Amino acid sequence: MIMKKILTALFIIAIPPQLTAQQALGGGGQVVSPEIHDDKTVTFRLPAPEAGEVLLSGDWMPWEGFSPGTAAMKKDDDGVWTYTTSVMESDLYTYFFLVDSLRVNDPGNVHVVRDVASIFNMFIVEGGQGDFYKVQDVPHGTVAKRWYHSPGLDKERRITIYTPPGYENGSEQYPVLYLLHGMGGDEEAWISLGRTAQIMDNLIAQGKARPMIVVMPNGNVSQQAAPGESTRGLFQPTMQLSNTMDGMKEETFPDIIRFVEDNYRVKSNKEDRAIAGLSMGGFHSLHISRYHPDTFDYVGLFSPAVFPNENATSAVYEQFDGTLKRQNENGFELYWIAIGETDFLYNQVVNYRQKLDELGMPYEYVETAGGHTWKNWREYMTVFVPRLFK
Amino acid sequence: MIMKKILTALFIIAIPPQLTAQQALGGGGQVVSPEIHDDKTVTFRLPAPEAGEVLLSGDWMPWEGFSPGTAAMKKDDDGVWTYTTSVMESDLYTYFFLVDSLRVNDPGNVHVVRDVASIFNMFIVEGGQGDFYKVQDVPHGTVAKRWYHSPGLDKERRITIYTPPGYENGSEQYPVLYLLHGMGGDEEAWISLGRTAQIMDNLIAQGKARPMIVVMPNGNVSQQAAPGESTRGLFQPTMQLSNTMDGMKEETFPDIIRFVEDNYRVKSNKEDRAIAGLSMGGFHSLHISRYHPDTFDYVGLFSPAVFPNENATSAVYEQFDGTLKRQNENGFELYWIAIGETDFLYNQVVNYRQKLDELGMPYEYVETAGGHTWKNWREYMTVFVPRLFK
Repeated sequence: MIMKKILTALFIIAIPPQLTAQQALGGGGQVVSPEIHDDKTVTFRLPAPEAGEVLLSGDWMPWEGFSPGTAAMKKDDDGVWTYTTSVMESDLYTYFFLVDSLRVNDPGNVHVVRDVASIFNMFIVEGGQGDFYKVQDVPHGTVAKRWYHSPGLDKERRITIYTPPGYENGSEQYPVLYLLHGMGGDEEAWISLGRTAQIMDNLIAQGKARPMIVVMPNGNVSQQAAPGESTRGLFQPTMQLSNTMDGMKEETFPDIIRFVEDNYRVKSNKEDRAIAGLSMGGFHSLHISRYHPDTFDYVGLFSPAVFPNENATSAVYEQFDGTLKRQNENGFELYWIAIGETDFLYNQVVNYRQKLDELGMPYEYVETAGGHTWKNWREYMTVFVPRLFK
Repeated sequence: MIMKKILTALFIIAIPPQLTAQQALGGGGQVVSPEIHDDKTVTFRLPAPEAGEVLLSGDWMPWEGFSPGTAAMKKDDDGVWTYTTSVMESDLYTYFFLVDSLRVNDPGNVHVVRDVASIFNMFIVEGGQGDFYKVQDVPHGTVAKRWYHSPGLDKERRITIYTPPGYENGSEQYPVLYLLHGMGGDEEAWISLGRTAQIMDNLIAQGKARPMIVVMPNGNVSQQAAPGESTRGLFQPTMQLSNTMDGMKEETFPDIIRFVEDNYRVKSNKEDRAIAGLSMGGFHSLHISRYHPDTFDYVGLFSPAVFPNENATSAVYEQFDGTLKRQNENGFELYWIAIGETDFLYNQVVNYRQKLDELGMPYEYVETAGGHTWKNWREYMTVFVPRLFK
C-alpha cells in the first residue's frame, strides 16, 4: 500500500474510466433497442427527431415477395421513434429501419449479420425454438476458418469447419455433415445467419445429435471466399454469380471430401457422410449426392432448387434419372426434403416428389409454414441433424 | 440434351435468376459507395433525399477527443449526398454517416467491423501500408474460435487462435505471440479490427516474420466471451467492465499459456513466447510479463496504460519495481514500447520510461504520429511482429 501511494504521488496514476478506452466511444447511445419484455413483446426505439417517417422492417412480418413487410413507428416528444410488437414466438429474428426510405441499422444493437449484400440487426426471443440459436452453458465446439486447395478448380478456397466439443483432446473419429448455402451466400452464411455452431452445441449437449463435424464450403465455384476474405479485396456481393449451377460444384465436390478426410479425424464411409443445403445448396446437395451416388447415406434438401437451368450443359445434369436410380439401388438411410408452403420453389419440389415417386425412391417430406427464409432453414437444421448417423 | 428438353417441358424448370436467392434481396442499392479512385481519392455516396444534413465521419479526419471529425456531404439533384476525399495514404480506414445526427452505416458497403458498441464501415486503400491488411494471394493460416477452461477464474472462456499456414499438415513446433485487446474489447477485437490474420499471412509470406501461433484471449476476466457469444446472450457492450485491471488477468494468465501449450504444437520456452497488447492490453502485457518474470522473451506495449488504479488492491501491483528488476535480471530479447504523440496515455509512457531508465531496464521506444487509434495499433503489429523469435 505504501508503494502505491508513492506511485500515485509521483505519476498521477488515475486513469479516468471513460478514457481507458479502445478507439471508439460514440454510437452506443442511451436508448435501449430492442427491448425484449418479459411478456415476449419487443420494443424498438430509434432517436431521429428530424425524420418524417420511420418504418420497422422485421422478418416476422408478412412478406411481400422477397422483402419482409414494414410497420410504422411513432415519434415521441423526445424525437425517439418507437414500435412495440405483439407477443412473439421464441425464435431468432432480424430487422432494420427505414428512415425516410433510407435503410438504417439499429445503433442500439451491435448484433448484426450479413445476408448477401445487406446488413441486418438480430435478436433472440428465448423460451422455445430460439433457445437452439442461443449460446447456452454447454460444452462448445470449435469454429475454424481454413483454406484448402481444390485441384478441380485450381484454386485456394476458404471453408468453415465446426468440430464438436472434445474433438481436439480425443481420438474418436467423427461423422461429417457437409452443409451448403444458397445463391448469394458463401462459407460464412451457415455459421452466421444459420447459427450452426449454436445449434450443434445445443443438440449435442441435449443428446439429440451425435457429435459430428460440420463442413461449410463456399458453393460459388468462381469465388475463392466471402466478400472481403479473398484477394479480390472488399467488394459489394451480388446475388447472381457465374458457375454456381453449371455442374462444376458437383464435379469438384470430391476435392472437399478429400480435404476433410485428409485433415480431420473422420470416418471415411458412406454411412458417416451427410450432405444438406438450402435453396441453391439444396440443388447442389441433390445433384452432388446422385452424381456421386454411393457417397452419402443422408441427404437433406431445405427449400431446394431442383431442376437445372435450360442453358446448363454439364454432363452432371445429363444423367438425372439414371444417377438417382443408382443412388436408390445403392441404398441410403435418409432422403429428407423440407419446404415452406409459400416458398417460390414449392412447385419444383412437388414435381420432384412426383419424379421420386415414379422412380420408387423413398424420401421423407416435411412441409412447414412460411417461405424461403432463414427462419425455416434454421428450424430444418434442428429437425434434420438429430436424424443423422443413428 | 433430349432429356433436358423433356424435363423443361414437363416441369417448367426455369429459375428466374432474381429468385434463386437466399432470403434477402434488398439493401445493396444501386449507388456505389465508397468508390476508391485510381488517384487514391475516395468518393462516398448516400441516397437520402429527405435529409437536411448529412455528415461523413472518418477515422482519417482530425480527431476531437475520442471521436473522429466530420465533413459535410453535399446533396445532388437525385437526392444522393456525396463527398470526395483528397488523396489518401494507403491504409485501412473506418467511417460512418450522420444523417440529421442519426448514426448510419453505408448501405453500399457490407464490410463492417464492431468497435466496442459501435459498428463502422471499412475500406482499404491499397499500394502501401494498407496491403498488409488485405487478403493477398499467399498461403493463409487458420483462424479458430475455441473455448478453454480457466481453473483460476472457474470459467469456460472463448479464445481466438491464429495458426500459421502449414500448421495442420506439419510436425514443426511453433513460437507463440499472446496478443491482448484494450478496454471494451474482447477476443474478437484483434482478429477483426486488428486484421491479425491478414497481417500475419502477409508478413510470413514476405519472409518478414517467422511462422508463429497468435493467441487472442478475452482480457475481461468477468466476461466469458464477446457480446452474443456467451450465455449472457445478446447484449449491448460497454466500455467499462469490472475486474479488468484488478490483478486477476495477470494472476490467471498461466491458465491460458497452459491451455495453448497443452493443445497446440508449440515450443514451451521463454524464448518462444511473446506478449503484446494495446491500451489496457498493454497494461496487461506489462504486468503479466513482470509478475511472471521469467516467462516472455518479447514484450510489446502498444499505447499502453501503465499504472494501476489507486483502488486496485491485488498483490500483483504491490511488487511493481521488484518484479521489473527480476524480469530485467532474468533477461529478455526485446521490450518494445510504442505510442502516438497525441495519445492521452503519452505522459504515462513518459513516466514509465523514466522508471525503466532508473531501473536500468533496456527497452526500445517508438513514437508515431496520431493518438489512441487502431491505425496505430495495426501499424505497430507490422513493425513489432518481424522482431520476434529471431
